Amino acid sequence: MPDIYLIPQIEFTRVESAALDRFQRVPLLANMARANALAMVKRAGSGHLGSSFSAMDIVTWLYYEEMNLRALGWDSSNRDIYFSSKGHDVPGLYAVLYALGVIPYDRYIRLRRFGGLDGHPDVGVPGVEANSGSLGMGISKGKGMAWAKRWRGSDGRVFVMTGDGELQEGQNFEALQTAVQQQLGNLIVIVDHNKVQSDKLVSEIIDLGDLENKFRAFGWRVARIDGHNVRAFAETLTQLRDREGQPKIIIADTVKGKGVSFMEHPRALQDANGLYPFHAGAPNDETFQRAYDELIEKINSALDAFDLAPLLLKLVPPEPSESSKPIMLLGEPVSQAAAEKIRSGVSDEYVAVAYGQALVELGAKHPELVVLDADLASDCRLRGFEQAFRERFIENGIAEQDMVSMAGGLARLGMLPVVNSFASFLAARANEQIYNNAGEQTKILYGLHYAGLIPAGPGKSHQSIRDISLLAALPNMTIVQPCNAVETKLFVEYCVERAQENCALRLVIGPSPRKLQLPAKYELQVGCGVELAAGTDAVLFAYGPVMLHEALLASELLGERGFALRVVNMPWLNRFDRAWLARTVSDMNYIFVLDDHSPIGGLGDQLQSALLESMLWNDRRLTKFGVEGYPACGTPQQALHFHQLDGASLAARILQRVKQGKVN
Amino acid sequence: MPDIYLIPQIEFTRVESAALDRFQRVPLLANMARANALAMVKRAGSGHLGSSFSAMDIVTWLYYEEMNLRALGWDSSNRDIYFSSKGHDVPGLYAVLYALGVIPYDRYIRLRRFGGLDGHPDVGVPGVEANSGSLGMGISKGKGMAWAKRWRGSDGRVFVMTGDGELQEGQNFEALQTAVQQQLGNLIVIVDHNKVQSDKLVSEIIDLGDLENKFRAFGWRVARIDGHNVRAFAETLTQLRDREGQPKIIIADTVKGKGVSFMEHPRALQDANGLYPFHAGAPNDETFQRAYDELIEKINSALDAFDLAPLLLKLVPPEPSESSKPIMLLGEPVSQAAAEKIRSGVSDEYVAVAYGQALVELGAKHPELVVLDADLASDCRLRGFEQAFRERFIENGIAEQDMVSMAGGLARLGMLPVVNSFASFLAARANEQIYNNAGEQTKILYGLHYAGLIPAGPGKSHQSIRDISLLAALPNMTIVQPCNAVETKLFVEYCVERAQENCALRLVIGPSPRKLQLPAKYELQVGCGVELAAGTDAVLFAYGPVMLHEALLASELLGERGFALRVVNMPWLNRFDRAWLARTVSDMNYIFVLDDHSPIGGLGDQLQSALLESMLWNDRRLTKFGVEGYPACGTPQQALHFHQLDGASLAARILQRVKQGKVN
Repeated sequence: MPDIYLIPQIEFTRVESAALDRFQRVPLLANMARANALAMVKRAGSGHLGSSFSAMDIVTWLYYEEMNLRALGWDSSNRDIYFSSKGHDVPGLYAVLYALGVIPYDRYIRLRRFGGLDGHPDVGVPGVEANSGSLGMGISKGKGMAWAKRWRGSDGRVFVMTGDGELQEGQNFEALQTAVQQQLGNLIVIVDHNKVQSDKLVSEIIDLGDLENKFRAFGWRVARIDGHNVRAFAETLTQLRDREGQPKIIIADTVKGKGVSFMEHPRALQDANGLYPFHAGAPNDETFQRAYDELIEKINSALDAFDLAPLLLKLVPPEPSESSKPIMLLGEPVSQAAAEKIRSGVSDEYVAVAYGQALVELGAKHPELVVLDADLASDCRLRGFEQAFRERFIENGIAEQDMVSMAGGLARLGMLPVVNSFASFLAARANEQIYNNAGEQTKILYGLHYAGLIPAGPGKSHQSIRDISLLAALPNMTIVQPCNAVETKLFVEYCVERAQENCALRLVIGPSPRKLQLPAKYELQVGCGVELAAGTDAVLFAYGPVMLHEALLASELLGERGFALRVVNMPWLNRFDRAWLARTVSDMNYIFVLDDHSPIGGLGDQLQSALLESMLWNDRRLTKFGVEGYPACGTPQQALHFHQLDGASLAARILQRVKQGKVN
Repeated sequence: MPDIYLIPQIEFTRVESAALDRFQRVPLLANMARANALAMVKRAGSGHLGSSFSAMDIVTWLYYEEMNLRALGWDSSNRDIYFSSKGHDVPGLYAVLYALGVIPYDRYIRLRRFGGLDGHPDVGVPGVEANSGSLGMGISKGKGMAWAKRWRGSDGRVFVMTGDGELQEGQNFEALQTAVQQQLGNLIVIVDHNKVQSDKLVSEIIDLGDLENKFRAFGWRVARIDGHNVRAFAETLTQLRDREGQPKIIIADTVKGKGVSFMEHPRALQDANGLYPFHAGAPNDETFQRAYDELIEKINSALDAFDLAPLLLKLVPPEPSESSKPIMLLGEPVSQAAAEKIRSGVSDEYVAVAYGQALVELGAKHPELVVLDADLASDCRLRGFEQAFRERFIENGIAEQDMVSMAGGLARLGMLPVVNSFASFLAARANEQIYNNAGEQTKILYGLHYAGLIPAGPGKSHQSIRDISLLAALPNMTIVQPCNAVETKLFVEYCVERAQENCALRLVIGPSPRKLQLPAKYELQVGCGVELAAGTDAVLFAYGPVMLHEALLASELLGERGFALRVVNMPWLNRFDRAWLARTVSDMNYIFVLDDHSPIGGLGDQLQSALLESMLWNDRRLTKFGVEGYPACGTPQQALHFHQLDGASLAARILQRVKQGKVN
């Protein structure tokens, strides 16, 4: 990690109070905000730069020149309201809110850290007006705010920023229709039309056609500007200042990555052979330094041209290393060996990669296999299949409901659709469509990517801790989660070749904390798990690479205290082999289940019912561990520790439970 | 019930084989199909006539003249495919499928009966190509079929019928965008543009604007015709016969209720002061007879004009009365008294009516209370609030996602939104939007109407048996279901005035089987239920008017056998008072829970966890009863009996369970 410098708030104040024309000042402030956004994303290790930069001039203008917030205060019912529907451009917003003194320094430097700034907008952060990050909800939410303002007779407009790829979500068009009927003239939508979605051209994924014509067909008042020309933006906003009932939309033609030459579209796309590399994630050290230096140089030369002194940058102290703190278990530090195991918690294995490879292998054997994507092909590791079987790869854009129902039609005519998106979007947004398909008794494989608590940086819009509960009541849906690459391939094969019903395959998106070893001759048997650590004092059921790593840590830590915890990998989340289950718990008084999910509706609840039906209760004690409340944002260790699901916390909770149990 | 006559299949064959011009023949066949649809809906006691009639000429033409089905057979991969996305026009489709001999007589006369024809399309019925009934999924599903045909090189086109109100669903626009990108030229969408949605004008609910312009803006090839002019329809279909990749859409201007003078729009709307009365439900005897006579007269005069003999109608024998069969419990008939109680199972109480009244009362006290509707205002009993507080009633059209996110925006600015739709649509389709709102820690009341198994006539698209599981993992969502009018008002008050978090209020849409009596001084206490029947041998927890009636029947039947079953009304589905729970089960070895929901994720699972956490297991036996598998279609008694949830079945299952338990 290189040294990270910040443009302190006082520098923004200096530039703002300088005798500059506002049309010169705001682009300068915007570049200063870009530099801070870049620095904070680098420090955080992830974040969305491309769209933070494309929207930066507009956002800066709104807060510095257009909105009445600074005059009326953030609590005024007459305030103007701005929020971004796409939400992943929030590093840019945070930079402006820091510059305005709304977000304090100590919090600003903690992007994607526990107690800092969420990876996607959350109203818990000062100045943030709405939770977003899952796409397509913003215009609807802005409608509600605009309606409430009108009903109350409050002043102030509601500005909603959307992406362009985001417009593939159907909810936008519901809102376009209803906003006109409801005559919400105080609602102004701004489309950050930067032409690139996650990593490909919007026109290549799902083209939007003639946007102006489309919005006019929906009855909106439409304007179009160069989104980096703040003068044009200002003049357009003036033209749109009326009390009429017609909602307004401004199509702002912008450049993704604007501000850093080699991050800008189209150059960045060309340099990377057609896959835009700066949508999400932090640039590497070298790229970061080049980009940062270019921005600072650009800002300083502008300052110089205005006879202003160059920037005074402030060095941001590096984050305190986790490894400095001792790891405690019930008040005593754990052994050196255990502590090292806990701290070295990343392998080079990605179960998602194994999933992508398995699809390619099975695609060759199964001509009926067709893969559907909702513009997450790289994250879901579908590029290999796309290249090998282009004619059977369906890019459906950011339209999960349409994708799922389309899969239903494919299945009705004998295809085997493999539907992919993040679990939080697929299982929730397309839930009724999944139910409708399942009712036709066809077979569809749902790839639930980014399942569970980790990574915890993106925040609650992306962390999926409800998807098992959302699918478990479907009569013909097998829900599974593999723990390593080997088991992942076995499960993709099972779902494609053996399963008689729909399958939901939960996958961790990040690297496995450790490479888990399965028995040499391991084979999948429906409803049967496998022991990963021996133990006679209690049994802990867990699944997936993240939680099994913590479960094994707990077992190792407890071993040091003379408590033998058996750890069982249970990848079948709603199917149980009663005989196997009886064998596995027969000699145990204490049964623990660890869910990478809410404790409600996860493996714990399903297992509880299976034990009950098998009359395996009696005096046994079952304890369920899971993600209580809303998933915390932060580093993996921060989130796991907050939810008391890290190995040391689990070990402590297990010992306490057993002690308590003995008392009864 | 008047005598019901049917136009037998042989009469359709006679007319088809007569020497008539096809443009004369098809409208005649369509009216014959209308007559049969009307007769079957009357016999069923419910069904959708208005849109069955508006789409009838188009559907009849497609099956008799346009599609290759009769030549190639329904199993051919080269067949043309037709299905309706809206689905509630299925009585019209059934009439054509009967006329063509695809649906046999014995099944045809059993509309909305167990083992007969589902109230909404289901692929289990011969000739039905897709499950539908929940709106807005059809174009997407048709896309999948069209894609599969093209990929396989199969012939045949895919015809998808949509409603016009249905176009308010955003998923349609996702599909309009992706179908163009995917160049699905073998997909032909037909809009049954009858101008009226459930009971009001589309233009009054959410106007669609210039539809032709809209579809062209999305890149579709658009044609517009009079949907009752089959010659124009035929010519248009010929013009659209090409192998080009551009998907096609035909806007068919139709008349809702077409074929029966006083059921036609606009007359029917005017006669009923602006609320169209023939969208759903069977007409009363007098109205039915007038309509039927008018249709038969029209058909006969046409036959006469073509020198054909008048229709030979066939009397359909009345349905065997349920009351003729003895009611058995474990092989022995139940007492006369019990049998009468079981058969007289309808009161004049509707909990939904009490809900509507409570909203009006609270609306007067709470200016921040705003009611949102998705075009189900009559079913959800919102008309009273709409009339009393028009300015706080938001009609949002058939756009559940937009409605829910709009509610989020309203709540962010201090309003208290009450969001209404059917549970199956609201909890599933808008699930991610509900999660997003809940994450903002505002308070919203979700009215989950038509919760549970009954009425079972509409079929699985409408019966909601997953909604508790879909919401239970939300950290700040209280889920409740009242059992009678009194408790309903108490809960609406609780949610509006006392609850500190979001509330989901499940409501049965039909009449209560019996008026349940609550204790005189009954008050709501969070997590506490109330005993409705005393008993010492076992306790049964249930909720809602439908299942509590069956629970009490079970208790009464068991009483006759000397088994005292305590029945507890537990309206709190995911909140439990541990002390009350301990008192309630302390003296019981056998605990039963009856869910008006899937046994997965319902009250049973939540109660099971609460008992577990309270260490109330030990040797107690918990048994969960719920709707296993997909909800059955039929009369209430048929559906309850199929799922073994009727009083007699419950009594038998409880006795068997206890006997079995004693054996262990």
